[in-house]
Amino acid sequence: MSVTAADQIQAVEAYIAAYGRGDLEGVVAVFADNATAEDPVGSPPLVGKTAIRDFMAVGISMGAQLTLEGPIRCAGDYAAFPFVVTLDIEGQAMRIEVIDIFKFDDEGKVVEMRAFFGPENMKPA
Amino acid sequence: MSVTAADQIQAVEAYIAAYGRGDLEGVVAVFADNATAEDPVGSPPLVGKTAIRDFMAVGISMGAQLTLEGPIRCAGDYAAFPFVVTLDIEGQAMRIEVIDIFKFDDEGKVVEMRAFFGPENMKPA
Repeated sequence: MSVTAADQIQAVEAYIAAYGRGDLEGVVAVFADNATAEDPVGSPPLVGKTAIRDFMAVGISMGAQLTLEGPIRCAGDYAAFPFVVTLDIEGQAMRIEVIDIFKFDDEGKVVEMRAFFGPENMKPA
Repeated sequence: MSVTAADQIQAVEAYIAAYGRGDLEGVVAVFADNATAEDPVGSPPLVGKTAIRDFMAVGISMGAQLTLEGPIRCAGDYAAFPFVVTLDIEGQAMRIEVIDIFKFDDEGKVVEMRAFFGPENMKPA
């Protein structure tokens, strides 16, 4: 049984909402145990939920807040969505423009996450 | 030598501008000869520039116009960008919300294109 677009949208919204609450376990809950995350694309992938938790904890500690910048696009096993992250880096408020691609397994968990952004997308908020 | 973010942004903007002019050869010019295109993701990939040209010609014939919906995100060999396509399907004006991922080769040509959208992203304009 394949994941539906409604399931995918719900997972993305849960992920964003968990950041909004500073809820690390809520953020991590959308991932499968064997998930990989490449954040940003071009960096060595994080492998497994523990490595992903450690990485996301840093974002949470910086007060990262995610705001959707447009509709979620669901295609096959994937969801793609444009958003802005605001966070605090050593006292400086920053905004980073990102597009995430989530690949889902049949249970609706994210097995692969890729975050697209570069230096041009990082600005003082 | 790797492609730069400036090269990637220029290629994406050239691609969008070529659609704006209804310029099929301009659209196809951004792709490498051996490029693949999965549009939408989940459908069988088009392989090679000739197959991609035939596919893009259909979009051009429908008057497809692309409008960026947010900044282009460059990461490693990739550019990701959110946009809206407007086109005419059998007399009905439609808008489709899409995120494209372009992967570039070292010459700055697109070797892999993946378009993320689903039925939820297709609406009467």
